[in-house]
Amino acid sequence: MLNFEEASKIIAEAFEELRLRTEEIRITNALNRVLAEDIISDVDLPPFDNSAMDGYAIKFNPSIREWKIVGEIKAGNYKTLEIDEQTTVHIMTGSMLPENCDGVIRIEDVLVKGDKVVLNNNAGYSFKLNTRKKGEDLSKGKVAIEKGSLLKPQHIAVAASCGKSKLKVYKKLNIGILVTGDELIDINEKPSTDKIRASNPYVLHSAIKESKMNPINFGIARDDKSEMTKSVKSALDSSLDILLTSGSVSVGKFDYLKEIFENLGVEIKFWKVSIKPGKPLLFGVYNNNEQKTLVFGLPGNPVSVLVTFILFVKKHIMKLLGNQELVTANAIIKTNYKKDDNRLHFVKGTLEKDNTGSNIVSIVGEQSSGNLAQMSKSNCLIVIDENKINTKAGEIVECIMI
Amino acid sequence: MLNFEEASKIIAEAFEELRLRTEEIRITNALNRVLAEDIISDVDLPPFDNSAMDGYAIKFNPSIREWKIVGEIKAGNYKTLEIDEQTTVHIMTGSMLPENCDGVIRIEDVLVKGDKVVLNNNAGYSFKLNTRKKGEDLSKGKVAIEKGSLLKPQHIAVAASCGKSKLKVYKKLNIGILVTGDELIDINEKPSTDKIRASNPYVLHSAIKESKMNPINFGIARDDKSEMTKSVKSALDSSLDILLTSGSVSVGKFDYLKEIFENLGVEIKFWKVSIKPGKPLLFGVYNNNEQKTLVFGLPGNPVSVLVTFILFVKKHIMKLLGNQELVTANAIIKTNYKKDDNRLHFVKGTLEKDNTGSNIVSIVGEQSSGNLAQMSKSNCLIVIDENKINTKAGEIVECIMI
Repeated sequence: MLNFEEASKIIAEAFEELRLRTEEIRITNALNRVLAEDIISDVDLPPFDNSAMDGYAIKFNPSIREWKIVGEIKAGNYKTLEIDEQTTVHIMTGSMLPENCDGVIRIEDVLVKGDKVVLNNNAGYSFKLNTRKKGEDLSKGKVAIEKGSLLKPQHIAVAASCGKSKLKVYKKLNIGILVTGDELIDINEKPSTDKIRASNPYVLHSAIKESKMNPINFGIARDDKSEMTKSVKSALDSSLDILLTSGSVSVGKFDYLKEIFENLGVEIKFWKVSIKPGKPLLFGVYNNNEQKTLVFGLPGNPVSVLVTFILFVKKHIMKLLGNQELVTANAIIKTNYKKDDNRLHFVKGTLEKDNTGSNIVSIVGEQSSGNLAQMSKSNCLIVIDENKINTKAGEIVECIMI
Repeated sequence: MLNFEEASKIIAEAFEELRLRTEEIRITNALNRVLAEDIISDVDLPPFDNSAMDGYAIKFNPSIREWKIVGEIKAGNYKTLEIDEQTTVHIMTGSMLPENCDGVIRIEDVLVKGDKVVLNNNAGYSFKLNTRKKGEDLSKGKVAIEKGSLLKPQHIAVAASCGKSKLKVYKKLNIGILVTGDELIDINEKPSTDKIRASNPYVLHSAIKESKMNPINFGIARDDKSEMTKSVKSALDSSLDILLTSGSVSVGKFDYLKEIFENLGVEIKFWKVSIKPGKPLLFGVYNNNEQKTLVFGLPGNPVSVLVTFILFVKKHIMKLLGNQELVTANAIIKTNYKKDDNRLHFVKGTLEKDNTGSNIVSIVGEQSSGNLAQMSKSNCLIVIDENKINTKAGEIVECIMI
């Protein structure tokens, strides 16, 4: 059976072969999208020498402390004005500097007496004080934002300054969701006898949205080989980037999915990983002309489905989103944790700060992979290494934030 | 002048007085929304005693290692079957347990010989092994998710299991954006002479969306008292929860906003905070019948506008989003930082991990508040305390992730 690292490596390689498409979108929709082109500045930033303060523009001469006001420049209303060492122009923040100006004295540092400005006794000034040079932030023709950047508000601002009302970004991956099981009913129905509501389509839908990708629901397939084959084929024919299934990949008599995937031409890369929860994970690649679809057979248990999505799907999507990683934190574990196998465990935990500001993490409830309500009390997965048998309270553990 | 803590306290109090409205939305739109009701489970989870494994259901007797197969239970296809100590039922993961069952032996731990199942030599079993009890995750009638929870995928899954296809959540706050300045032109135009493209509406729009709230754009107001009054009045009359303006709040001759706010009935809570960048920040509250609008006069510089949004607006919105805080991290600073005032500084930084896994942070470029392109190279704001004059390379600093 593969270990976590081996499985991750195979998936990472498959992700690298995904054909990423691009689209042009409005800047107001570009938050958290990934730029598919370099943005080149079509202007200098700032576009002209300007004042960083409200104050008085002067020609530098440190021995002079009094000037005659010869005019006023308001931002966006430039007037050609010239100053010499004896004269000054009242200037507003962001305004273009007058001719000869090589410094601006803050309004707070002077006293105005009629048409005269006098420097306060405790104030001084230096060459180029409170001025911003044309192009000091960014030069025209230079790369303002690099291709591959995840667009945060600070990038949106730069793109706007460069006049890019539309941006070329990578398309969101289309990720299909197909859940399996005769026991599953719609969430609007009331369960009877041995039926349960199908929560997996919803957890996957929201987890995909949280990963900034596009979820597409393919419904529930029954545990019937021909019905399931039809559902899987329909999903594989839908030009998806990724197909997620849940259930039907363990060792049960009706776990048909592996066989169905193989029959439909999915190249199985691995089945089963030495982790808990999530051991039955299946991974394959489907080649449909030029389109590759990564196929993840996630386990059916609701906790396992979310944990394996985070560890094997979201983790690699994060790389596509500006080379990010899953958010992790180290913390002191509050209780002992016993383990009787050599699998890598991901234990539901609640990470908090104690009153000294240190991270501490508690194990949440039972570790049954069915315990979804307990999962909802957790904010992290505590990572317990393969070779670790007993983790003792007080040890430092790695936590993956969820 | 107020310090950062004093200003934050005043804003926090005003946020507490915001009237939060609720709405009902579909579960597929509920990610990252805040629940406005307790979700009560209408079922037990799991809804029935069931098998955690594919295997063989037995009546516990540790001395018995061989059983006769008397039937099969498939998930979602329960058949009434009874077992005794000598007999077993082949059972699939998630299936309801047969009568008398108090344990399931994994399929991997047995050998099937015709209609007999024999326990492997190295395998054992214990009472209730691999079974899940009805209601062990959540009991019917109990609170499944508490009011006020930020809905992550794990909560969506629980809500789905409880049959909640619609959820009552708090409405997104409506946040208006009004920027001011004669120098501003639309981003589709090409700047000439002393004009610059208005990037602030875009940075605020995306920052509001990143804060999971609803941005509403009120355009650009010119530096003309009557035009600006009209624009501000129109925004204040729009039942906003928050109004953000940029520019016109410093000490310049045409910085009319404070006066305009006062004339229109905005109660100014403070003007100016001892921080850098962002000193000119103005904050007030507008009472319009039962609706309160929090009014933030943000500075006009693009870096200041984003920094003050994060520190004074997003910080408090995070509290509304399931009591979160801004994400911070401690890091070793790579270079010296000199400071010649007693303001609290927020310095553009790039936080990375070094090869030992420690957080290190570099200061990005010049600290001019105009340096937006440099801001886009940063991923954090380094916090430099009021009383700190020289921060030396190698010291630990707090970083606010942006």
